[in-house]
Amino acid sequence: MGHGVFFHIGACLIALALACGTAPAAGLQDRVVRMAELEIDPAQLEAYKAALKEEIETSVRVEPGVLSLSAVALKDDPAHIRILEVYADAAAYQAHLQTPHFLKYKSLTQKMVKSLKLIETDPIVLGAKGQSAK
Amino acid sequence: MGHGVFFHIGACLIALALACGTAPAAGLQDRVVRMAELEIDPAQLEAYKAALKEEIETSVRVEPGVLSLSAVALKDDPAHIRILEVYADAAAYQAHLQTPHFLKYKSLTQKMVKSLKLIETDPIVLGAKGQSAK
Repeated sequence: MGHGVFFHIGACLIALALACGTAPAAGLQDRVVRMAELEIDPAQLEAYKAALKEEIETSVRVEPGVLSLSAVALKDDPAHIRILEVYADAAAYQAHLQTPHFLKYKSLTQKMVKSLKLIETDPIVLGAKGQSAK
Repeated sequence: MGHGVFFHIGACLIALALACGTAPAAGLQDRVVRMAELEIDPAQLEAYKAALKEEIETSVRVEPGVLSLSAVALKDDPAHIRILEVYADAAAYQAHLQTPHFLKYKSLTQKMVKSLKLIETDPIVLGAKGQSAK
């Protein structure tokens, strides 16, 4: 019994280490990775950020193919937002565009966004700690 | 014994879910998040990317405070590289600058980098899937 417990704790730690390690290189060539550069109406910035936050949190939670969405505001110019978007593959990205939460975000924010530039990229390396290490 | 096994598998799955879920909002205000925009000498681009890949993989693996480093090349202009850097806090960032692997990368690449622009940012939301979901 005692051994059983330790075996399962050990197996658990190994599973955790495997599951939460750095991203494997395999599959990197399939990733759709791009950057969005947005300028937001300063009067609507807080409302925009709330809508964006909700959209990102929902996407990462419910869509298997949305691997990460990182949104930042430039310190020197907080109405300028950049988002680094990482999708598992092209199908995952296309599926994302049809989700109710994405369509709601687009509709809610269309009058808040003064400009939007999408920059297609090729990933070189996407190094991320497992969330356990935070 | 049977119950013990299932209990531990259950506990393991819960630990995995907690550890690998989306990043919690707590601590976001401590994060140091910035973007680097680099232009690389095209003749040395492959060597630069290899050095960058090694530096990023080592940093994420050995430094507890390096949460993620995502490097991409612009599709339309592959000698232009962008890196989104996420450190746990200012101390983690300062520690990173002193590591042997970072100093080696800086030294190796100093004649490959034609320009480097660092853009300080405030994170809005850093949404990332646990690596298990890839």
